[in-house]
Amino acid sequence: MIIKMPSDELSKIIEKTAEDIKNMRIRGAGRIARAAVSCLKVVAERYDAKSVDDFVLKLDQVSRILLNTRPTAVSLSNGIRYVMFRVLRAKNKVSDVEELRKLTIDAASRFIENSMKAIRMIAEIGSKRIEDGDCILTHCHSTAVVEIIKRAWNEGKKVKVYSTETRPRFQGRITASLLGEVGIPVTLIIDSAARFVMNEVDVVLVGADAIAANGAVVNKIGTSLIALAAKEARTRVYVAAETYKFSPETLLGQLIRIEQRSPYEVIPEEELSKMKNVSVLNPAFDVTPPEYIDIIITEKGVIPPQAAAWILKEEFGWSFTKDLLEKYMTYR
Amino acid sequence: MIIKMPSDELSKIIEKTAEDIKNMRIRGAGRIARAAVSCLKVVAERYDAKSVDDFVLKLDQVSRILLNTRPTAVSLSNGIRYVMFRVLRAKNKVSDVEELRKLTIDAASRFIENSMKAIRMIAEIGSKRIEDGDCILTHCHSTAVVEIIKRAWNEGKKVKVYSTETRPRFQGRITASLLGEVGIPVTLIIDSAARFVMNEVDVVLVGADAIAANGAVVNKIGTSLIALAAKEARTRVYVAAETYKFSPETLLGQLIRIEQRSPYEVIPEEELSKMKNVSVLNPAFDVTPPEYIDIIITEKGVIPPQAAAWILKEEFGWSFTKDLLEKYMTYR
Amino acid sequence: MIIKMPSDELSKIIEKTAEDIKNMRIRGAGRIARAAVSCLKVVAERYDAKSVDDFVLKLDQVSRILLNTRPTAVSLSNGIRYVMFRVLRAKNKVSDVEELRKLTIDAASRFIENSMKAIRMIAEIGSKRIEDGDCILTHCHSTAVVEIIKRAWNEGKKVKVYSTETRPRFQGRITASLLGEVGIPVTLIIDSAARFVMNEVDVVLVGADAIAANGAVVNKIGTSLIALAAKEARTRVYVAAETYKFSPETLLGQLIRIEQRSPYEVIPEEELSKMKNVSVLNPAFDVTPPEYIDIIITEKGVIPPQAAAWILKEEFGWSFTKDLLEKYMTYR
Amino acid sequence: MIIKMPSDELSKIIEKTAEDIKNMRIRGAGRIARAAVSCLKVVAERYDAKSVDDFVLKLDQVSRILLNTRPTAVSLSNGIRYVMFRVLRAKNKVSDVEELRKLTIDAASRFIENSMKAIRMIAEIGSKRIEDGDCILTHCHSTAVVEIIKRAWNEGKKVKVYSTETRPRFQGRITASLLGEVGIPVTLIIDSAARFVMNEVDVVLVGADAIAANGAVVNKIGTSLIALAAKEARTRVYVAAETYKFSPETLLGQLIRIEQRSPYEVIPEEELSKMKNVSVLNPAFDVTPPEYIDIIITEKGVIPPQAAAWILKEEFGWSFTKDLLEKYMTYR
Amino acid sequence: MIIKMPSDELSKIIEKTAEDIKNMRIRGAGRIARAAVSCLKVVAERYDAKSVDDFVLKLDQVSRILLNTRPTAVSLSNGIRYVMFRVLRAKNKVSDVEELRKLTIDAASRFIENSMKAIRMIAEIGSKRIEDGDCILTHCHSTAVVEIIKRAWNEGKKVKVYSTETRPRFQGRITASLLGEVGIPVTLIIDSAARFVMNEVDVVLVGADAIAANGAVVNKIGTSLIALAAKEARTRVYVAAETYKFSPETLLGQLIRIEQRSPYEVIPEEELSKMKNVSVLNPAFDVTPPEYIDIIITEKGVIPPQAAAWILKEEFGWSFTKDLLEKYMTYR
Amino acid sequence: MIIKMPSDELSKIIEKTAEDIKNMRIRGAGRIARAAVSCLKVVAERYDAKSVDDFVLKLDQVSRILLNTRPTAVSLSNGIRYVMFRVLRAKNKVSDVEELRKLTIDAASRFIENSMKAIRMIAEIGSKRIEDGDCILTHCHSTAVVEIIKRAWNEGKKVKVYSTETRPRFQGRITASLLGEVGIPVTLIIDSAARFVMNEVDVVLVGADAIAANGAVVNKIGTSLIALAAKEARTRVYVAAETYKFSPETLLGQLIRIEQRSPYEVIPEEELSKMKNVSVLNPAFDVTPPEYIDIIITEKGVIPPQAAAWILKEEFGWSFTKDLLEKYMTYR
Repeated sequence: MIIKMPSDELSKIIEKTAEDIKNMRIRGAGRIARAAVSCLKVVAERYDAKSVDDFVLKLDQVSRILLNTRPTAVSLSNGIRYVMFRVLRAKNKVSDVEELRKLTIDAASRFIENSMKAIRMIAEIGSKRIEDGDCILTHCHSTAVVEIIKRAWNEGKKVKVYSTETRPRFQGRITASLLGEVGIPVTLIIDSAARFVMNEVDVVLVGADAIAANGAVVNKIGTSLIALAAKEARTRVYVAAETYKFSPETLLGQLIRIEQRSPYEVIPEEELSKMKNVSVLNPAFDVTPPEYIDIIITEKGVIPPQAAAWILKEEFGWSFTKDLLEKYMTYR
Repeated sequence: MIIKMPSDELSKIIEKTAEDIKNMRIRGAGRIARAAVSCLKVVAERYDAKSVDDFVLKLDQVSRILLNTRPTAVSLSNGIRYVMFRVLRAKNKVSDVEELRKLTIDAASRFIENSMKAIRMIAEIGSKRIEDGDCILTHCHSTAVVEIIKRAWNEGKKVKVYSTETRPRFQGRITASLLGEVGIPVTLIIDSAARFVMNEVDVVLVGADAIAANGAVVNKIGTSLIALAAKEARTRVYVAAETYKFSPETLLGQLIRIEQRSPYEVIPEEELSKMKNVSVLNPAFDVTPPEYIDIIITEKGVIPPQAAAWILKEEFGWSFTKDLLEKYMTYR
Repeated sequence: MIIKMPSDELSKIIEKTAEDIKNMRIRGAGRIARAAVSCLKVVAERYDAKSVDDFVLKLDQVSRILLNTRPTAVSLSNGIRYVMFRVLRAKNKVSDVEELRKLTIDAASRFIENSMKAIRMIAEIGSKRIEDGDCILTHCHSTAVVEIIKRAWNEGKKVKVYSTETRPRFQGRITASLLGEVGIPVTLIIDSAARFVMNEVDVVLVGADAIAANGAVVNKIGTSLIALAAKEARTRVYVAAETYKFSPETLLGQLIRIEQRSPYEVIPEEELSKMKNVSVLNPAFDVTPPEYIDIIITEKGVIPPQAAAWILKEEFGWSFTKDLLEKYMTYR
Repeated sequence: MIIKMPSDELSKIIEKTAEDIKNMRIRGAGRIARAAVSCLKVVAERYDAKSVDDFVLKLDQVSRILLNTRPTAVSLSNGIRYVMFRVLRAKNKVSDVEELRKLTIDAASRFIENSMKAIRMIAEIGSKRIEDGDCILTHCHSTAVVEIIKRAWNEGKKVKVYSTETRPRFQGRITASLLGEVGIPVTLIIDSAARFVMNEVDVVLVGADAIAANGAVVNKIGTSLIALAAKEARTRVYVAAETYKFSPETLLGQLIRIEQRSPYEVIPEEELSKMKNVSVLNPAFDVTPPEYIDIIITEKGVIPPQAAAWILKEEFGWSFTKDLLEKYMTYR
Repeated sequence: MIIKMPSDELSKIIEKTAEDIKNMRIRGAGRIARAAVSCLKVVAERYDAKSVDDFVLKLDQVSRILLNTRPTAVSLSNGIRYVMFRVLRAKNKVSDVEELRKLTIDAASRFIENSMKAIRMIAEIGSKRIEDGDCILTHCHSTAVVEIIKRAWNEGKKVKVYSTETRPRFQGRITASLLGEVGIPVTLIIDSAARFVMNEVDVVLVGADAIAANGAVVNKIGTSLIALAAKEARTRVYVAAETYKFSPETLLGQLIRIEQRSPYEVIPEEELSKMKNVSVLNPAFDVTPPEYIDIIITEKGVIPPQAAAWILKEEFGWSFTKDLLEKYMTYR
Repeated sequence: MIIKMPSDELSKIIEKTAEDIKNMRIRGAGRIARAAVSCLKVVAERYDAKSVDDFVLKLDQVSRILLNTRPTAVSLSNGIRYVMFRVLRAKNKVSDVEELRKLTIDAASRFIENSMKAIRMIAEIGSKRIEDGDCILTHCHSTAVVEIIKRAWNEGKKVKVYSTETRPRFQGRITASLLGEVGIPVTLIIDSAARFVMNEVDVVLVGADAIAANGAVVNKIGTSLIALAAKEARTRVYVAAETYKFSPETLLGQLIRIEQRSPYEVIPEEELSKMKNVSVLNPAFDVTPPEYIDIIITEKGVIPPQAAAWILKEEFGWSFTKDLLEKYMTYR
């Protein structure tokens, strides 16, 4: 039996989740998505709905609040859509609120569970592509990448890793540290040295922040430069990405927006303030075209980047897509 | 009339010069070369030689001391060779020490003068390749590059500049600061963002530390990655380099050695010490292949990189080269 | 209630449509397809069929008459197939002629309606890929392209356009005129100048006459040269095409035939007649390989060219395809 | 009515098939697969099962015996999976052994029939891509390739063929001989001469041993070098492959193993034994990346290589895939 | 004995030559250069000089008048420089005016003679690179190209030629006509069809308007697009150019200016005037980068484009170059 | 004092040399050239000339006899030209036969000596480009290559070598054997496996049969395919070639002829004779374009391939070249 919660208590929960995502207390594509979907699940469990319409309206309002917290995070809108697609599709078919409530809770639970399974599955699939003796280059910090390499290592494959430092925030040091901890030999390099070592590298392995309908990969700034250098040297490029990072709005032409971040990540404010006529451009991501990527490793299996549109269709439907996509789009 | 100097005073001067180059109190390819040649000039002026042979022996000894200070600097050995070629060629033809002394002093003076003129000439030639409205991307800090851009700006060409920060030592900030000071709008980017902005860039303009016989350019680590991204986007790549940066030993097969620098330029020692199994590779330079370079701007004029062997021949001779090259080679 | 028409009146209508398509009074891929399907619809509505078999036979005969009018137009055979697939699939399942008649009329109506919606949808999707300040290069005259650019302009995006003149028939002047009329600044260039301006161009946007199973795009002669120059300069290439331009027979190995047109489009007859040993080759289209195309914008969404086979499958079925394709194939 | 066979007679049949495949009395991807599936069919027909579970257990055991015979043959595991997928899926739904028996026999028969039809269909589809006057280059010996060319020739297309000799076992001589026999002019070249003649070649046409999820083609060693030379010269590359050569385990990250063969295929033992410090590497296949392949011609139609993942899904299912794939995987 | 001419008669001759070049009564790179040098020769023969200085001053003035007639013609300034280099170099060494007069006349005569020989020599050298059965594609109208092909034809080589029409002024029709006249089979194509026929083409053969120090070739707009398509198809690109088309000022950084011509060459004025917001860009030339060119055929022999700087040095000197170049530079 | 030889004894010596070259008793580019030049030297020493003209005529006749023995060997004509250039240039300046005789003998001796020194010098220069741990791939058998690798090995560099077998005559086995003998680990592969191993290879190192004015390298068939695969993998390609392999006639447009050899090198006569409609194409060499070659290692130093024209000029002169080249040209 479901216990309804007073409206203002529920509001506080919603507010808190939204606040935590906004202030980056909750961060990382997966965690953000799961937090938002958990919030929808709580609402579904506890909201004392007057009617099916009222129930849907409430979920819709909460969705909008959550979407506003990080308007460029693809995983966030995908999580919300996963639930809301099912809600809206079912809305006119259910006999009462309780049926819809159950369906909503199930959808939310399934999304959360799938998301948690996805990394494990990617590690299992991806580690098969790593061979004993491989030299791997990675950029920035991706949980999927770390898990793939660690799994390959645990299977007895003697790999070595080049990790870029990843300016401006040095997330590559985290990667180096995590891999080194389990015994994997890691060499830290500056980002600019990627081409210097590329002829030694067997596999470039990176994560993704978002994947577009044509297979273009949005990832930490510098990824496209590394992929280009890999192409030049006939080195394979693998991208590891859960399917909820595929951006369905790109099917409808939407371009993925590149976040511009603070100049003071790049140069201390006091130093910059002394320079005349100098400004800073600090894009967080860049776009790697599909022709520089050999495969994308998803929890559903290995695909060439050009199959992204098809994965989107499998995951998010097709004819149904347009209206709902626009309803819960983060980019505005 | 030339006043001879007591032997130990001269020794101190030589020692001091060698020390200053070694400890980088004197640095920059041009300054190093001029300091070493000035030292040879002083020796030529002041050494109380017993015979032609004694004079040549002394110069030879001093040359070796100087060459040992920075064994990978092409400009240093080229400066010394410029003088010593002429000394050794003349040795058996002169009537006495004084004739050889004069010839040596003249050669040294000419080298110094030429080196000082070269930058001005490169600025004059290079600025013609810059057009009004051009967007220029540069990497690291090169005096020749700064002078070309400033001259173009002073000629009324409204350029804008992207300057990479240039990890690990941020010399790109110096470039940004110097250009910004005279009014040129500069945008500082992290090195990894070079491909992100490349479609806007009209010209990539960089300096060089050394140029090989086949036109390959040795420059600050990351240059080859930027040149590759420029090639991908049909953006022109110009290299500005005085001819004394061309490495004649590469004609004889010698590979240019890439200096490996301290890990602590990349990551603070205390942070690295906490990581297990993590080491750092910190190459100072990389090699850009000639096919990614449109032109090299020298004080002798604009050449395609493939004309480097010919420039070397023009500057350093050909059949005469081998023995002397090996006599005063920095790489061992 | 459906009013049957005397056989010879119906014949006249069929004849007139066929004649109009043949003589290019009806032209343009979309209009041709809709005219042919309308004709099938009229037949379905008015033909006084003796039996289901007789009804199907009649439609089949009319289809063949229409297919013969323009044997290289992909949209024409696709329109006819859209209807006839459904007719033949239903043939043995319907209870009587009237059921089949209704189904046929519905299919025809749906095709016509979809076709009219497609351009609007493409404009909506495609305009999202255009950004404020973009410089667009287009070739020849494509309604879809014109609609995308106009919609982007109306959304307030300040674009500028290079339009090639498009020899030999100068359709690029129509494009220039249509875009210029609504205020968009257009620069007309000769086709040969495409590479000259390419470094300024952000997006190459063209239409298509047909799209093959592997994503190769058949469009106005010169398109592949422009796409090549775009690739060389890392400029994006977008193709706008309704799905009824995808050629299902290419799934079965059929090559798309390139129409060869009159020499006198290229050079006046009197001038050519004075030349000895000079002939003219005047192909109407060329083939752009999929690797030079970033995305195809269809009314179903954005896809990479390599997803063409999959779109064909979605639109035209797969196992069912072969016999019917060959039944209503234009190429012979 | 089905006559059950005594257990040891059945064992002999199974043993014999396994032996014949192992010893290469049965060879060629298609024949191996059909022999293995025929064996399963016989077991299904004749095994005197005590229960549904017993029946399935028997088939499973036989499958494992067969899989062990040639652990790198993709067609073998695909044949077995084709049957076993259907068996395992139906297992809990059938009412009794006889229903499952019938279903198994049907599946096996269908696989065999499809496999025999596939070559004919590929010849029909592929021959349409060959034009009158084409110069075709092929490598090694592929039945599908020979059938395509012969069909095109029989349709009156005057083709000429370059056939590489295909070291180390000279299978190209078989190809040359088979094509020459029907009147087609064939020029035999050494493998190294592929680039020498490439500018004359219109189409490179080769078979495949296996196709990976991302469209990479595993074929006779040297294929990737020829495809590279074709790409360099803008010559089309077509691969002919039945869908049972697509490797579903690659969807799950599995890399296709490259068989290493005896050194004495490359150099006579007595000659090698006289050499000091010389060993031989003799890989049977290499991997051609999808970007060097224009189309793959399957019995289901023409696809770009990047559609391989999608074909795998169509043929082998998706969510169902993982467990069964691993159950009947050849690579271990 | 030389007969001096009254000053105003000489002025008329100078004026007339200048006028004829300006108004294009004299046109074509070779003819312009020869006319200007002839004019200098007449001045040298007839000018009644008071002193060596007066003689040089006169020649200098006349040079400036001539240079102003067509400020972008490389051959014009090269002709004048050829003479004036020699005059200025000799100026302080000659004993009297008559010696300098003779030297000037000789220099002028030699330039004219060399220029006339150059085309014949290029035809002789270039025709050796044409083989029996070759299919040649050319663009625009180049005398050197026509002579090479005719000579090869006369030597019995059965070539065929694709000639682009060459918008906007259709000079390709002249080429087609001239070659067809002697019996060579020519196919006229629109410029956009270059890639369509490229796989059939063995050699792309074009002329040049100017050649830069790095080997970049300035030629009729569209040349670079054709060269790009040739590179894509591994088709050789040959450029035929007399050495007086090499631009020595490019050694000093000077960019070659691209002439912009009238919009009404592209579209009739009355048609353009009816269009709103439509302008025309009509560049006469484009720049083909050296990496797309296999060889340059000069009267001095065959060189790779990267040897252009060296040819310039051979022809125009090096250290002497700068001042004189700037003295007689056309670009300002 | 020089002892004259009776005319018929001399004839026998000439005949014998010619015969030995023709029948390949003397073979290898260097040995052929030295044998021919030795023959000229003997003639110079022993021929009892009546006059300078008679002496020159004799040498000219002998030259023609020798040139006819192997009409495609560049080194042969270069050897003869080396001597005859000097003879013809001196002819009108010498006082008597004896002066010319001495000059001729000196020239011949110098050529022979230089040729013998060249390999040693190339080994010295080339070995510097090999680094400890390098993996080298070579093709066919080149003395220069073997000497470079052996020298590097003797200097303590632990290299490993891939040697192709080099169809059809398996010269790669000689290379493998020679290198293996001194302890170098060699792996023999079939030619087709070059791309399979390329990602492991650090340097491709091959010899040359001839080098053209634009830097194109003529070498054993298959070299260009390997160079292409090296380019694709960013692996360096080095060519080792004595300067007398540079072909001066290519400066004048001459194409280097590719020798076509017997079909029975490729397939046994009895096997071929059983095949219908099968012929064999067996080119001995192919042409590697300069853009796939990083450096050419000559005895004069390391050059980029594009400097070949300049080396030719240095070695063979320029303005003097044409007549003499054509006088002693092997290709006719």
